[in-house]
Amino acid sequence: MLSDKLKNIKVLAFDVFGTVVDWHGSLVNEIERLNLDVDSSEFALAWRAGYAPAMQRVRSGELEWTLLDELHRMILDEILQQFGLTTLSESQKQHLNKAWHRLEAWPDSVEGLARLKSRYIICTLSNGNIGLLANMAKAAGLPWDCILSAEVFRKYKPDPDTYLGVARVFDLSPGQVMLVAAHQNDLAAARDCGLSTAYIERPMEFGSTQLKDVSPNPENTLHAKNIVELASILECRETRYSKKSKIG
Amino acid sequence: MLSDKLKNIKVLAFDVFGTVVDWHGSLVNEIERLNLDVDSSEFALAWRAGYAPAMQRVRSGELEWTLLDELHRMILDEILQQFGLTTLSESQKQHLNKAWHRLEAWPDSVEGLARLKSRYIICTLSNGNIGLLANMAKAAGLPWDCILSAEVFRKYKPDPDTYLGVARVFDLSPGQVMLVAAHQNDLAAARDCGLSTAYIERPMEFGSTQLKDVSPNPENTLHAKNIVELASILECRETRYSKKSKIG
Repeated sequence: MLSDKLKNIKVLAFDVFGTVVDWHGSLVNEIERLNLDVDSSEFALAWRAGYAPAMQRVRSGELEWTLLDELHRMILDEILQQFGLTTLSESQKQHLNKAWHRLEAWPDSVEGLARLKSRYIICTLSNGNIGLLANMAKAAGLPWDCILSAEVFRKYKPDPDTYLGVARVFDLSPGQVMLVAAHQNDLAAARDCGLSTAYIERPMEFGSTQLKDVSPNPENTLHAKNIVELASILECRETRYSKKSKIG
Repeated sequence: MLSDKLKNIKVLAFDVFGTVVDWHGSLVNEIERLNLDVDSSEFALAWRAGYAPAMQRVRSGELEWTLLDELHRMILDEILQQFGLTTLSESQKQHLNKAWHRLEAWPDSVEGLARLKSRYIICTLSNGNIGLLANMAKAAGLPWDCILSAEVFRKYKPDPDTYLGVARVFDLSPGQVMLVAAHQNDLAAARDCGLSTAYIERPMEFGSTQLKDVSPNPENTLHAKNIVELASILECRETRYSKKSKIG
């Protein structure tokens, strides 16, 4: 039986990069297809490492509001220099930058989301721009009810306006929204706004050579190995919908 | 065979009220369930008639940015007075106002959208707020890839920022986006921005006593009786997805 607190939850808002999709493994595959003279894992990690500082430049006001696609391109141009990769054409760079639109889901994501969708509104709450998230959902088969993004709120996580924005969009109290994420700092910021939180273990987020600490934090409402386990904890059983997704 | 112009289209952006869902018939049913001493069709028409002037007050700057849920409530309070309906409780008014979240799809909409989704990105472009559109999609089974709304652009249609905003979100040229709507003025504003356009006949939009002129305008790229016919014109055949939708 679900507790009264859990029964009260109406919306599950998902962090996406690392939580729902495997950015590291997907970028490694994209980079290897280009046959560049580079350690593809190091390159992927450097690209992602530029993410937080780039968003901080927007949050601080140093940069005006800039979509993540553009931030990714700024970082890409820097690291191509750093890694001495000077032969890519403009169209190759554009294609590589859109690798973030083609990230692959973790193996449990589609089934877990389909099961959760039977009982909850499932939406994204990601710093990715809307177009990126929509293209990714289409390619990876992620069955979102709604795509919410920093772009909607014109603020990047962990700004409170993003977490509270989800509650406002659905006319709910913050505790009726649960943020689902593989990152403790994202969840902590959501808790500070009164949201419920669920941690998802993704030990391989940074690849197999850099295992992540996935120990539970008791301050989270829930802790699950993956999204299918979250669906089981929330008593969302296999549905006709999820069975059909697997056939399709 | 599709023409080159049609082959170039990537995104179908749908007007929702009247085009995808039957606001008049759905509101009539909701009002009748309340057993009010009122002509439910007249009441529904009056509610909808308040829509354009209310949005105009936002567009002109007389009202600051206001979500459609709030505009609907302002209009509802006015027409309850006009119709002499003074007995509704606050919670009944809140429930009635959310009737717009529960509007029912026209009989062809779910199948047509599912078929179109197999080839195109299908999204909303509605003056409805995001929460309204997401709740409606969940209840009516509308399989949007993405919910775009005036709320994302903080401008109401027919502001050019809304039509051009769809192209910007997906990093496309305006002609690669097709607006699908049952309203010639919406389509005309989209054409002025360079979008492709498809008109959908909805002669019963205002009920059976007030049939709408649905004659074709040759300036539109396409004209279809309904969304299933649009899917056929765009050569989106029945898919495993749409078959499953009908079972589900």
